[in-house]
Amino acid sequence: MRYELYYWPGIQGRGEFIRLALEDADADYVDVARRPKGMQAMAFQMKRNHVFAPPFLRAGELVVAQTAMILHYLGPRLGLAPKGEAQRLWLHQQQLTISDWLVEVHDTHHPIGSGLYYEDQKPESRRRAGDFHAGRLPKYLGYFERVERSRAITYVDLSLFQMIEGLRYAFPDTMRSIERKYPKLVALHDRVAARPRLAAYLASQRRIPFNQQGIFRHYPELDA
Amino acid sequence: MRYELYYWPGIQGRGEFIRLALEDADADYVDVARRPKGMQAMAFQMKRNHVFAPPFLRAGELVVAQTAMILHYLGPRLGLAPKGEAQRLWLHQQQLTISDWLVEVHDTHHPIGSGLYYEDQKPESRRRAGDFHAGRLPKYLGYFERVERSRAITYVDLSLFQMIEGLRYAFPDTMRSIERKYPKLVALHDRVAARPRLAAYLASQRRIPFNQQGIFRHYPELDA
Repeated sequence: MRYELYYWPGIQGRGEFIRLALEDADADYVDVARRPKGMQAMAFQMKRNHVFAPPFLRAGELVVAQTAMILHYLGPRLGLAPKGEAQRLWLHQQQLTISDWLVEVHDTHHPIGSGLYYEDQKPESRRRAGDFHAGRLPKYLGYFERVERSRAITYVDLSLFQMIEGLRYAFPDTMRSIERKYPKLVALHDRVAARPRLAAYLASQRRIPFNQQGIFRHYPELDA
Repeated sequence: MRYELYYWPGIQGRGEFIRLALEDADADYVDVARRPKGMQAMAFQMKRNHVFAPPFLRAGELVVAQTAMILHYLGPRLGLAPKGEAQRLWLHQQQLTISDWLVEVHDTHHPIGSGLYYEDQKPESRRRAGDFHAGRLPKYLGYFERVERSRAITYVDLSLFQMIEGLRYAFPDTMRSIERKYPKLVALHDRVAARPRLAAYLASQRRIPFNQQGIFRHYPELDA
């Protein structure tokens, strides 16, 4: 099966959680919007398939949107999730919690409106980021630190790697000061980063660098 | 199967989307936290099953959290979703989009922090609500107006009913002025409200009234 991934070509964003799974599994896929006329193709498929927002995946005739649902679909097919229903639902539940967490990361720099510039909501961002660092960030990190993980790597583990990477980029001072409280998550991050196919991907041109248009952004004034 | 629903007892909130499905299907269920010592039971089960946040559902030995995932699980079992994978995924995708929408409704009165009082974030709320009414609300309503619906009612239809109800409670002036643009959604709302079991539920004590602790809140200054 050749998968077609559709996502904004200039950022890691939500699409990166899918890219990591496809890359780690050495899946046959095309990152459509990064190819010539790819944005036109994405607009066409979005309209045709009633997709609310990228990322979405085409797998033959099936079109699947919503990051967590794409991973729920791909997981067992890529060998990154078990096939039993209870275990699949448990992973999906964790991934949906990561989705919630990611919205809160995004809203540290866009608390008023995603259509406005950061520069138009700076004081509000500073308040929201302060609340995030004081309460929500340790709550999410603590939750995923406590949850037992299987020995076999799943797509949720890849996503947790990406969360740690992104948080380190966006909030380096904060992360430096709190990471020691989450040794299992840090160890998981390192274990994922060392997987040969993923390490090759991360070192390649296919990995878009973090930047100030994505979900994880580094504004020093929003770091603790 | 007797289902156990766990959710905060004083609000509709996210739990209401599950209650509507259980009630419409005349399912055998217990709303655990609304019974004596129910809050203790909820705290116990949350910890035991690594649940990040309510609502969650116990179905025999299985524990399922995250609103959209609970409905994905229950849908075919309650006769509120088809059994085929492609159609189930399509409904789940729509429900996840409703979850995203609901977060944005919540954040109109809590743009800075969910742990703070509304009174501590009033100016920010006014800005965020303005952005919501101008951009996001019509985007979501327009999307669900355009999406084709099956003749058979699904759990997504029940959730869209709840969104319309909640938006009318929270933003009556706004809704009065824009609803005529979404005739299919309004017709769907009325059709769902007229379903006998749902009508009986809505008129019963089991339906918690909207209030100022829930997700949909009526602050006149946040209405357009």
